[in-house]
Amino acid sequence: MIRFECDYLEGAHPFILKRLEETNFEQTAGYGEDPYCAAAREKIKELCGGADVEVHFLVGGTQTNFTVISAALRPHQGVLAASTGHINVHETGAVEATGHKVLALPSEDGKIRADQVRKAYEAHWNDKDHEHMVQPGMVYISQPTENGTLYSKEELQALHDVCEELSLPLFLDGARLGYGLMSEAGTMTLRDIAELTDAFYIGGTKVGALFGEAVVIGNPLLRKDFRYFIKQHGGMLAKGRLLGIQFDTLFTEGLYFEISKRADELAMRLRRAFVKKGYELRYDSCTNQQFPILPDDHIEKLKEKYSFAFWEAVDDGHSAVRFCTSWATKEEAVDGLIRDIEAL
Amino acid sequence: MIRFECDYLEGAHPFILKRLEETNFEQTAGYGEDPYCAAAREKIKELCGGADVEVHFLVGGTQTNFTVISAALRPHQGVLAASTGHINVHETGAVEATGHKVLALPSEDGKIRADQVRKAYEAHWNDKDHEHMVQPGMVYISQPTENGTLYSKEELQALHDVCEELSLPLFLDGARLGYGLMSEAGTMTLRDIAELTDAFYIGGTKVGALFGEAVVIGNPLLRKDFRYFIKQHGGMLAKGRLLGIQFDTLFTEGLYFEISKRADELAMRLRRAFVKKGYELRYDSCTNQQFPILPDDHIEKLKEKYSFAFWEAVDDGHSAVRFCTSWATKEEAVDGLIRDIEAL
Amino acid sequence: MIRFECDYLEGAHPFILKRLEETNFEQTAGYGEDPYCAAAREKIKELCGGADVEVHFLVGGTQTNFTVISAALRPHQGVLAASTGHINVHETGAVEATGHKVLALPSEDGKIRADQVRKAYEAHWNDKDHEHMVQPGMVYISQPTENGTLYSKEELQALHDVCEELSLPLFLDGARLGYGLMSEAGTMTLRDIAELTDAFYIGGTKVGALFGEAVVIGNPLLRKDFRYFIKQHGGMLAKGRLLGIQFDTLFTEGLYFEISKRADELAMRLRRAFVKKGYELRYDSCTNQQFPILPDDHIEKLKEKYSFAFWEAVDDGHSAVRFCTSWATKEEAVDGLIRDIEAL
Amino acid sequence: MIRFECDYLEGAHPFILKRLEETNFEQTAGYGEDPYCAAAREKIKELCGGADVEVHFLVGGTQTNFTVISAALRPHQGVLAASTGHINVHETGAVEATGHKVLALPSEDGKIRADQVRKAYEAHWNDKDHEHMVQPGMVYISQPTENGTLYSKEELQALHDVCEELSLPLFLDGARLGYGLMSEAGTMTLRDIAELTDAFYIGGTKVGALFGEAVVIGNPLLRKDFRYFIKQHGGMLAKGRLLGIQFDTLFTEGLYFEISKRADELAMRLRRAFVKKGYELRYDSCTNQQFPILPDDHIEKLKEKYSFAFWEAVDDGHSAVRFCTSWATKEEAVDGLIRDIEAL
Repeated sequence: MIRFECDYLEGAHPFILKRLEETNFEQTAGYGEDPYCAAAREKIKELCGGADVEVHFLVGGTQTNFTVISAALRPHQGVLAASTGHINVHETGAVEATGHKVLALPSEDGKIRADQVRKAYEAHWNDKDHEHMVQPGMVYISQPTENGTLYSKEELQALHDVCEELSLPLFLDGARLGYGLMSEAGTMTLRDIAELTDAFYIGGTKVGALFGEAVVIGNPLLRKDFRYFIKQHGGMLAKGRLLGIQFDTLFTEGLYFEISKRADELAMRLRRAFVKKGYELRYDSCTNQQFPILPDDHIEKLKEKYSFAFWEAVDDGHSAVRFCTSWATKEEAVDGLIRDIEAL
Repeated sequence: MIRFECDYLEGAHPFILKRLEETNFEQTAGYGEDPYCAAAREKIKELCGGADVEVHFLVGGTQTNFTVISAALRPHQGVLAASTGHINVHETGAVEATGHKVLALPSEDGKIRADQVRKAYEAHWNDKDHEHMVQPGMVYISQPTENGTLYSKEELQALHDVCEELSLPLFLDGARLGYGLMSEAGTMTLRDIAELTDAFYIGGTKVGALFGEAVVIGNPLLRKDFRYFIKQHGGMLAKGRLLGIQFDTLFTEGLYFEISKRADELAMRLRRAFVKKGYELRYDSCTNQQFPILPDDHIEKLKEKYSFAFWEAVDDGHSAVRFCTSWATKEEAVDGLIRDIEAL
Repeated sequence: MIRFECDYLEGAHPFILKRLEETNFEQTAGYGEDPYCAAAREKIKELCGGADVEVHFLVGGTQTNFTVISAALRPHQGVLAASTGHINVHETGAVEATGHKVLALPSEDGKIRADQVRKAYEAHWNDKDHEHMVQPGMVYISQPTENGTLYSKEELQALHDVCEELSLPLFLDGARLGYGLMSEAGTMTLRDIAELTDAFYIGGTKVGALFGEAVVIGNPLLRKDFRYFIKQHGGMLAKGRLLGIQFDTLFTEGLYFEISKRADELAMRLRRAFVKKGYELRYDSCTNQQFPILPDDHIEKLKEKYSFAFWEAVDDGHSAVRFCTSWATKEEAVDGLIRDIEAL
Repeated sequence: MIRFECDYLEGAHPFILKRLEETNFEQTAGYGEDPYCAAAREKIKELCGGADVEVHFLVGGTQTNFTVISAALRPHQGVLAASTGHINVHETGAVEATGHKVLALPSEDGKIRADQVRKAYEAHWNDKDHEHMVQPGMVYISQPTENGTLYSKEELQALHDVCEELSLPLFLDGARLGYGLMSEAGTMTLRDIAELTDAFYIGGTKVGALFGEAVVIGNPLLRKDFRYFIKQHGGMLAKGRLLGIQFDTLFTEGLYFEISKRADELAMRLRRAFVKKGYELRYDSCTNQQFPILPDDHIEKLKEKYSFAFWEAVDDGHSAVRFCTSWATKEEAVDGLIRDIEAL
């Protein structure tokens, strides 16, 4: 079985394993206060334009999301997010478990727009009973979204502007950030992301690392005592250097960007093969996730050889499915799949 | 200004004030362990058919909702409710503050249907990633709903049956229960409500009391240690007898039912006046809340003399508004309002 | 049975019932936005020296404690309190239920001292692993304490000074505040309390009201959005005017102070009777709670006619018990009890 | 600088790195549903006597503690623990952040006794106001304790018996379990631990793994839906196989036990060197943590060459410090340290 169902099927980029081995018997301080974390932090800061940011390393995405969000909100506040957002559907209510409502905004493509944020904000404050309602306190977006789509620089700028105007911190979930940055449709650098958000994270788990997410916090209000929150929520790895070593490796000689780009290119090859075959796409994704709509019998046929994710039934006889590439996807696997698509 | 904007504008039924005065210098044990609470409990149990139920008294509706819901759910579970449900929109995220997501189901009229519950349940359990999602753990409904509408006995029976089948406790918010029971469209008794739900409450605040809600718990699993939850959530009144005295009075010689009936009748007179005038109704309510859709200039005209609640803009030039009657509404106020409606 | 076991045995001062009756059919806005709340707020502000404070009304003490504390703390912070503090022992973990640890400091008499606060603060910040520990974020004290003892003005000033220096808001639980203010050992006015704390509350439940606590918030940081917190925690009474009417009455012509003084005087008569009889006192209380240590057979004897609270076994054959007076205690009941003490 | 300050200074046992490398490009399902996790689970179950247990893998100790504890408790319950317990002092209030009080029991050596549990339980239930107090709902212990001490089999049996009698689940934190099992003072096997507790975990982070804790749940009540809790609390590693591979390696040919034994032996050599030199020990530890009490000038001298942890000041001029060995400690480091101790 050749697997395309997600982007965390393999271990880590070999350079990372090599560094782990080389450093294995070194003795370092725990909890992220080692030289490897320091070096990785510096590299990330530089890529963010030397901006005045703070960088922390956590283990996983769900953990990162609820740690950042609960650090930013007061108890009566909630977080605005697309109804399709990971925090709204796929984290077992982790944000609510910290006491906060996810204020879901409708979304067809995984994105939310600046005017949706403004309307939700105004709807709250213009309601004379607003004290009986959850106050919007933060905005959460994903780049790329859970549907593979991307915010353009203009769209992110607009979100940034409305958030700044309304004093709503903007938090960007970058679990797959590399695939967004390096997409042929991508229009932003890490520096842009850093400048246009209050906090974001650079996903490692899905982009070459064994695990790990690097949180970059620009807004000074969100930084205060952040390490307490990491610890309280179980995200402070005893051997924190494991995170430092991984991110240091990923940001040495552009590895993170290079492997992301390759995965995107393989995904676009798949996309073109689906389109050429006449299939429609559920979402217009130029990143590592592709969502073709296939006849159900073709799905059955492909399942004999490949694993991929069922997404949703589209009509009687057709379903959207998801194929993912990653830093680890083998070119020959994509070649073979394209041949099999053509042969359907 | 003659007020119709809500059903908690005045104090309490005079019989209640009288009983408070008569008993004022008696010394009783605190925290609901006094003879008045005991007497009120017995009366309520009897009205519930002598069923094997437990009765507790709390101070307010929001408090009652989050106390019952958080007592029933495990941390990874959420509560299914209409998107319009009070817990979803007007309690400042009180349920989320106890760690639980409100799983909102679409609703046009404030009600949810048995098949919506079943579909939500099946959608959860049929999703192979269900452990990444909030597990449905309870169903919350309101009777009457926030829109004044009523579940019929058949509808409640259907909800009961699906909840029982799927092991989802069914909780009914009866903040305005009296107005539902005594509506000309009402088809159920307190006993029916007790038999068809796992827990519900009998609203006092909006139906004759100064304050207070009587929670009736049928499901033994929800009863265990319930007084701890009341205390932890600030609902255990030191002078608990104040609640006992009020409910004992309300359930002496049918006072609760009598005052509810009168309020419903006044509301139906208003409804008929609006309909006769040619206005449409936003919701088909036969209870104490009426939601006519009026031309905006008529609204302005009425506002000179009456207070009532803006509900929502319907189209350019028309808005839905809410008029409430209550146990305390004066007949002459309704007479006058009807004359003014006719004169619009 | 003549009851002395607590200070919430009866209803309310007759003036309050009278005002409730007089205003019963007036129509007012809900949720504390009525003229009675406004009037009560003004009276309280004036008594606090016209200080720049915000006044809110909640229903009960536990509710008030966790609402204020959770509004003040960030998620990684805890509240310093005497180990005997109400929040640490008698609120079913309500503070923890909002996510915060009570950082208990040892106390023999119910009080904590400024240097204990400083030491706890320094112990935290001097520990190199402080990010692994709960950060002290607030100080909670009771006046009078749960043991009837009182902070002197000097002691409160010292607490205030250390709290200000260390940026720890100081919160004073005044469930029995009247009995503290009017004690023969009392040295402070409401204005002193307002000036020396960041927030405190004036207890109504135990001092003449049916129920209700008036929170006075001086620190602007604690005020922001406070009504959301009240609502979220179930403390926002629909008929909020009930609280306004009660506090307005209590602060009309000094009623609150007058009835507190009388209760204290009755308690001191009891104290003197116990001392005269040769009994020791468990705590040196000059307020409405008295804690004599009695031979167990004398306790049994008194129990035939009086109810009072067991406090703790002191040695083989002796126990401390608690007798409370209140605004409602009858003089003849105290006379009789003193005769019976003398006759033991 | 030669480091002895903790037991998570290095990476992982080389066998683990080797397995990670060998399996790196295999494609497996995520979230712990891969063959490596399955294999590791089987090995652990077998070592637990083939008992009817469930095994889950989490990332870190704090995370494991609050996940298990919050899964076991209802909202009004707390967890009994030694005042020195990790959950009470070094997890930034993580248990409280899930809403539960840690009910601290005094402890001199890090252990609690069966009769302390019984007394705390009885104190709760015998108090007539028990509904106003946090109900004991679980017992937490550490083996070895944070002080390096060990429960004997008899002590654990006694705790098990009282917990069973009182229906309090017994949870054992085994962050350093290997060092306890293989101590020369150890008297139990994994099977004993499994039989005498309701849930426990086998620490990987401090015993040879990069990270990871294996939770073993015997009590069926604690198992229900446990994976939801892992996910909600951020403990469900996307590449779950990393945990499976590590524990599978550790439990292949007894590696876990072998490396634990070696670390204990090195620690005992240190202990004997301190004792021989005439130093007292703060705790009687036969595990990998040693707590000698040294003159402060000797501490300064040793600090020139070694890092170790300050524990507490003992008297004017002496302090207790902590030296840890681990699976990775080099024999020559211990040899050198012993020579330097002798030379003090």
